[in-house]
Amino acid sequence: MVEIRKPISITEAIARVMAYIQMTEQEVVPLMESYGRVLAESIVAKHDVPPFHRAPYDGFAIRSEDSRLASEHNRICFRVVEQIGAGGLASRAIEQGEAIRIMTGAAMPPHTDAVVMLEQAKSFEKENYFTIRKPFEAWENVSLQGEDVKVDEILVDDGNYIHPGTIALLATFGYDTVQVAKRPLVSLITTGSELLRVEEELVPGKIRNSNGPMIAAQLARMGISLQFNSKLEDDMESCLKGIQQALAVTDCVITTGGVSVGDYDYLPAIYEKLGAKVLFNKVAMRPGSVTTVAVLNGKYLFGLSGNPSACYIGFELFVRPVLLSMMGCKKPYLPYTQAVLLEDFTKANPFTRFVRAIHVFDGAGAKVIPAGFNKSNAVSSIARGNAFIVLPGGTRGYQAGDVVDVLLLGAEEGEEKWLI
Amino acid sequence: MVEIRKPISITEAIARVMAYIQMTEQEVVPLMESYGRVLAESIVAKHDVPPFHRAPYDGFAIRSEDSRLASEHNRICFRVVEQIGAGGLASRAIEQGEAIRIMTGAAMPPHTDAVVMLEQAKSFEKENYFTIRKPFEAWENVSLQGEDVKVDEILVDDGNYIHPGTIALLATFGYDTVQVAKRPLVSLITTGSELLRVEEELVPGKIRNSNGPMIAAQLARMGISLQFNSKLEDDMESCLKGIQQALAVTDCVITTGGVSVGDYDYLPAIYEKLGAKVLFNKVAMRPGSVTTVAVLNGKYLFGLSGNPSACYIGFELFVRPVLLSMMGCKKPYLPYTQAVLLEDFTKANPFTRFVRAIHVFDGAGAKVIPAGFNKSNAVSSIARGNAFIVLPGGTRGYQAGDVVDVLLLGAEEGEEKWLI
Repeated sequence: MVEIRKPISITEAIARVMAYIQMTEQEVVPLMESYGRVLAESIVAKHDVPPFHRAPYDGFAIRSEDSRLASEHNRICFRVVEQIGAGGLASRAIEQGEAIRIMTGAAMPPHTDAVVMLEQAKSFEKENYFTIRKPFEAWENVSLQGEDVKVDEILVDDGNYIHPGTIALLATFGYDTVQVAKRPLVSLITTGSELLRVEEELVPGKIRNSNGPMIAAQLARMGISLQFNSKLEDDMESCLKGIQQALAVTDCVITTGGVSVGDYDYLPAIYEKLGAKVLFNKVAMRPGSVTTVAVLNGKYLFGLSGNPSACYIGFELFVRPVLLSMMGCKKPYLPYTQAVLLEDFTKANPFTRFVRAIHVFDGAGAKVIPAGFNKSNAVSSIARGNAFIVLPGGTRGYQAGDVVDVLLLGAEEGEEKWLI
Repeated sequence: MVEIRKPISITEAIARVMAYIQMTEQEVVPLMESYGRVLAESIVAKHDVPPFHRAPYDGFAIRSEDSRLASEHNRICFRVVEQIGAGGLASRAIEQGEAIRIMTGAAMPPHTDAVVMLEQAKSFEKENYFTIRKPFEAWENVSLQGEDVKVDEILVDDGNYIHPGTIALLATFGYDTVQVAKRPLVSLITTGSELLRVEEELVPGKIRNSNGPMIAAQLARMGISLQFNSKLEDDMESCLKGIQQALAVTDCVITTGGVSVGDYDYLPAIYEKLGAKVLFNKVAMRPGSVTTVAVLNGKYLFGLSGNPSACYIGFELFVRPVLLSMMGCKKPYLPYTQAVLLEDFTKANPFTRFVRAIHVFDGAGAKVIPAGFNKSNAVSSIARGNAFIVLPGGTRGYQAGDVVDVLLLGAEEGEEKWLI
């Protein structure tokens, strides 16, 4: 009567899910709309940076050889023959004893190879003259062509997020459009006859649908908007039809609820009817053990728990890395760190346990504290936390002061290191 | 001739900037568009969560007193009189020896106070009967009304970011619209005759404008889009006019370039002409020491350096906390942590130095490594890094293995702890 499911490890579950990744197509977007997208091309330096020797300060460009004999007791005088601002060019090469007044960012004029900073120059009575009292080395106070970047250098690989620094680099090389990965098309179906819409009044026995808006926001955090967001009754036929419609138009169908082994849990039967390959239907984790993932014709069916906490971690653990990997992202996992536990957590952990938590850094090191009520159907701790404590399966309770593994939420990238 | 400016500490500079915050107005947005906004109202529990005693598993709801004498050798039999799914209600209170088949999430029927899980029940030959072999305590296997949240509890304070967990909580309590802080209106003016537009071909002496797109993305990371984005020549009159126009329609005008003491640096004179109060024009930091902030009629004028690295840190250090604080955000600073330096950094630090860096966690602890070329005009390291190493002023070089302060980029919130 009760189907017995064999749980697999989280590591194995992630491996199975990641084995079916198909990359999305690419598209070209304007630079100014590329923030938060995933690069589908490497950024290659199209020229040196700086593209020419330039003045890093306001001052006087001179030939260093002319300064060779300068000292406190043998001041050398230069005549200012021209003035150039950033973006300007000198009209001619200078001769011995000549100098050019130059502004920050301006190209070094021909023959010059040092900049006398304003505070290093002593103005002479005549306005167009100054003296120096020390010799300048060749290229002293000069930003050399290519000192930051050499032409043809590969600077950022494809698969990286485009953040503000990436955009500065793209702008530098004239990328007014950028090749990026298309975002996967995602649909969401929340199931459960107990679910009211957010705007509905509470009635006995019912609760409002919080998973739907939550998942929409988890996707929004990744820059993905939903193609399709519907709520279905706990009814086999309407669920099947809804999922078929969603599959027809999207790469990935997320459902919440209906994945247990209860009488009203239709998802297992629907996967079978669709002919989808179920990758797993039980994971050795709490909450979220009933999380189920199936694939069909290269499309994903994520069956998340209807319990808010279980739903949340199921999304972050399985849906997020799949969607990021479809966009070519090479660090699709949540950022991992470790921190000192600030209070006892006395429950034993037969399965790996994810405890919603608040991660802080107090100057003496990273600390983490459970965010409150931590059952799988909890919602308050989801709102309070910024991290998960990860307690490996097979461990007993933890004490305040123990160092524990932590997954950070709300950041864009992470290594796979935390996998346990 | 050369104006001597007295640098102030970063802590003092931030204090001066933060003294002029005026909160933006509030507005109401639909829940589904509230991700990433700042809450302008506290979230108060409008009812208990769960709102009723409910079944956390599929099973049978019974009266615990009926199970009191059950044991391995004295199985007690129950008759199933009804079945309810989540969202359903029992038609009547049960009597002694009766049970109701109940699904996860369904409200506990009147008089019932325990759930027999499916694996705890042995089906009898007749379909509507089952037996148990242990007594159940009152409220065993029941999610109690209010165990997660009690009505009227303040769950999330105003001033917090709305993240996916916040949205789950808002949905739970029926907030189909949310009171949020309006985003500040921001304009950006990049100055410099050397600047080409991104789509222009490189010509001798000129470079493309990378600061403009970069700052637009730094703002986009905060959910703020530019009202006004223009590029002006190094020309006093056009700069003044551009800034006046920008001030007329926005809360905050960001400029890049023109803040040094050079002949073409018009910003100081413009602040004077406008009658703006200059809060500081030199900060004891590298890069970005020329960063200038002025205020006029409650509006901010941020004069950032034209050097990309200096511009970037100037934005994150001063502009970001001001804009977040205008929205009521109580943790407006960059997240702070510490990490082990992975390579020597031999330069002395007369001023506090921000070194663009890559922060990683390798299982043995947090590590940080400079992201490459780190002069103030560098652009490549901006694209590579995800953090800044902060080396306090007055220190000599640092060795690999030293623990250093780190500011993380790309996250939403941070404590003020790192201030030095």
